[in-house]
Amino acid sequence: MRIVFPLFDQFTSLDAIGPFEVLSRLPGAEVVFASAEPGTYCSDAGAALVADHALGDLTSCDVLVVPGGPGTRKLLHDEPFLDWVRTVHDSTQWTTSVCSGSLVLGAAGLLKGLRATSHWGCAGYFDAFGATFTAQRVVTEGKIVTAAGVSAGIDMALALAARIAGEEEAQRIQLLIEYDPQPPFDSGSPAKAPAAVLARFS
Amino acid sequence: MRIVFPLFDQFTSLDAIGPFEVLSRLPGAEVVFASAEPGTYCSDAGAALVADHALGDLTSCDVLVVPGGPGTRKLLHDEPFLDWVRTVHDSTQWTTSVCSGSLVLGAAGLLKGLRATSHWGCAGYFDAFGATFTAQRVVTEGKIVTAAGVSAGIDMALALAARIAGEEEAQRIQLLIEYDPQPPFDSGSPAKAPAAVLARFS
Repeated sequence: MRIVFPLFDQFTSLDAIGPFEVLSRLPGAEVVFASAEPGTYCSDAGAALVADHALGDLTSCDVLVVPGGPGTRKLLHDEPFLDWVRTVHDSTQWTTSVCSGSLVLGAAGLLKGLRATSHWGCAGYFDAFGATFTAQRVVTEGKIVTAAGVSAGIDMALALAARIAGEEEAQRIQLLIEYDPQPPFDSGSPAKAPAAVLARFS
Repeated sequence: MRIVFPLFDQFTSLDAIGPFEVLSRLPGAEVVFASAEPGTYCSDAGAALVADHALGDLTSCDVLVVPGGPGTRKLLHDEPFLDWVRTVHDSTQWTTSVCSGSLVLGAAGLLKGLRATSHWGCAGYFDAFGATFTAQRVVTEGKIVTAAGVSAGIDMALALAARIAGEEEAQRIQLLIEYDPQPPFDSGSPAKAPAAVLARFS
C-alpha cells in the first residue's frame, strides 16, 4: 500500500507528520515523500523534511495525503502540480488532505459539489471550488477525506486506518503513539477559544 | 529564545514535530535541529529531517526538547551525547523530553530523585535512573518537564508555552494549529485500550 505525501516549500510540518505517524504504521505501508524536484523542503515554521521522489515518477498510489500550509496558496495556480493531483487521484483508494491541503484538492476540481473541511481560516475559499465548507474535524465524501487544521490530520488518519485495516489496527496505532490527548486549554476551535484569543486573528 | 531539538537515527518524528509546531510559534523563538554530525536523520517510520547544527557548536539554549524513539536506546550509552545533555541542561530555562526521550535525561543523571513520565512501554527503565515513573501525560519537576508517548509532546508544549509566554499566547497557538482533538477511538492509553488491543503489545 503506497501512501504519498507531496511536499512543497512552506508546508506545515505537523500536517504531514501527524498522519504520517499513524499511516506509516499500517501493515504493508510504504510511505513516500515526493515533490516536484526531489530535495529538502522547509516548513513554514522552519523544519526541513526530505522528499526523495519526484512527483513525475509517481503516477499512482493507494493513499494520497496533501498537507497544508502557507505554501498551498502558490499551488492553487501551479497547473503541473494540479495535473499531478488529478492523475494520481484517478488511481487512489483514498485522496485526503489536512488543513489548507483541501484548497489544493479544490483547485484541482476534485471537490465540486462536495462538502469539505479545512483550517477554520480557509472557509472563504470553497465557494470558488463549487464546494461547501463544513466545520467538522473530518469530512468524508466517497473516497475524498478532508481534515480540519494542522493537528486534525491525526484524527483523520486514525479514522482512515480503521477503514483500511480495521478498528483494532487503528486502536493499536493509537495506543502505540499514546494518542490520549489532554490539552491544557480548550482553545482549539473558533467556537471554543476565548474572545480575546480569537481577536488576535482579526 | 533558542529552542534545541537534538535529532538522531531512529527518532520518532511526531515526538519532535508535535512540540516543534507549538514552540516554534512563540514570539522570539529560534528553533534549532541539531545532531552529533549535521545531516539528515531518518525516523523509525521513515521520515527524514535535516539537522543543520552540530551539537558541539551548541553549549547552551533556553529550551531543550529531547524526542524519543527506538534510537534513544543507543544514546543511553553514548557518553559524548549524555555529556552534551548535561552541559546544555546547566544553561536551560526548561529541559524537556517526549516519549522515550526521558530515558536519555535519566541516563544523563538528570532525573535522580524525581518523578518522570515516558511512553507507557518504558516504565521499567526508571528505577535504574533513581527516578519514579509516573503515568501522567506531563510531569513537571522544577525545570524538567517530561511528556508521555509520542503525541503527548503537543500537550506538553502547550503547557510550556503558557509558562513561557502566558496562557493567551498558548491558546493562540492552540487555535492556530486547531488542536481540538477528536480521536475516533478511546484507545490511547493502556488503561483505556480494549484488552485485545493491549494484548497485541505483549
